[in-house]
Amino acid sequence: MQTPSRSVAVVLFPDFELLDVFGPLEMYGMAPETFHLHLVAEKAGPVASRQGPISVAERAFAENRQYDLLLVPGGQGTRTEVDNPVILDWLAAQAGRAEYVCSVCTGSALLARAGLLDGVRATTNKMAFAWVAAQREQVKWEKEARWVEDGRFFTSSGVSAGMDMSLAMIARILDQQTAEQFACWAEYEWHQDAGWDPFARIHGLV
Amino acid sequence: MQTPSRSVAVVLFPDFELLDVFGPLEMYGMAPETFHLHLVAEKAGPVASRQGPISVAERAFAENRQYDLLLVPGGQGTRTEVDNPVILDWLAAQAGRAEYVCSVCTGSALLARAGLLDGVRATTNKMAFAWVAAQREQVKWEKEARWVEDGRFFTSSGVSAGMDMSLAMIARILDQQTAEQFACWAEYEWHQDAGWDPFARIHGLV
Repeated sequence: MQTPSRSVAVVLFPDFELLDVFGPLEMYGMAPETFHLHLVAEKAGPVASRQGPISVAERAFAENRQYDLLLVPGGQGTRTEVDNPVILDWLAAQAGRAEYVCSVCTGSALLARAGLLDGVRATTNKMAFAWVAAQREQVKWEKEARWVEDGRFFTSSGVSAGMDMSLAMIARILDQQTAEQFACWAEYEWHQDAGWDPFARIHGLV
Repeated sequence: MQTPSRSVAVVLFPDFELLDVFGPLEMYGMAPETFHLHLVAEKAGPVASRQGPISVAERAFAENRQYDLLLVPGGQGTRTEVDNPVILDWLAAQAGRAEYVCSVCTGSALLARAGLLDGVRATTNKMAFAWVAAQREQVKWEKEARWVEDGRFFTSSGVSAGMDMSLAMIARILDQQTAEQFACWAEYEWHQDAGWDPFARIHGLV
């Protein structure tokens, strides 16, 4: 039986972090028959990353389509977006209907501020941990984790961790062997252990 | 003494591979005072990746600016671009003046076809090795390497290897400690050994 396809919305906002977005998309992009990828932003059109390069949001929040998998990246822009009701309201509305809700790096600050992670185990970037955790104390923030799975919520640590988490999601939706195959195609050494996190220690969290 | 800044041209073409471009840009983007990043293509404007998401080339080849560091990604699009004289001529002209010329994955096929790698030690994606090597027999193709440095030419293995190579370039231009710091900020486990290459064996090359 073929796995049903999933629409994936990757949220863009000004000053998003490049690898938070394109690391996961590299992995999901290996199964185009399963994952239909969409860059979505407050307005459709060009959005500049924190590093400068510009990507194009194909769809606007206001189109109000429904997505099966939400992915929220981090980046310097999250410092502004945590106070932007447009993105928080959209995330809250979408998350109610999505099968999976994911974040990379400080993207979990947006999920937290949208009220989506109350009582949920979650993690974030280890260098920005204190700031993110202060956004919402009702979240069960975990200091040492490459990524955390709690039901339909997948939250990863900083930047590169989004690739490891996305491969875990691919293993969940498709299967382990396929996820390992995708990592191999990308010549990527997948950290399959969600507890692997040398960066928590480096940043004095444990 | 402050390190002089470098202009970095990352070449885009239709069906480029996302992580080949944005993995390296994540790393170079951590030193904006040193690396000035530009996406450059045959025509300025939107360019669709192999995975679908669109990025914006800020500059066109015809502007004929000079860049200090060239980075050529791979992706399905290289199969077409190896026969495109516009990109090959531009690479040849630029490479004559550039301080460093780099490729990720099958991007080395374009450097090879532009005649830039004759007598140079180089590598490429391990799954596509036979196709790339057949593009130009005058290149000293290396079957087992995460990346290869030969003078001012840096060529990496497939997709993820571009991040390891780019950190090595950052260590060359800035210093080792800074490159390690950037890997840590990205929560990236940098493979610092250019000879690390389990994928050569997986794909039957050694």
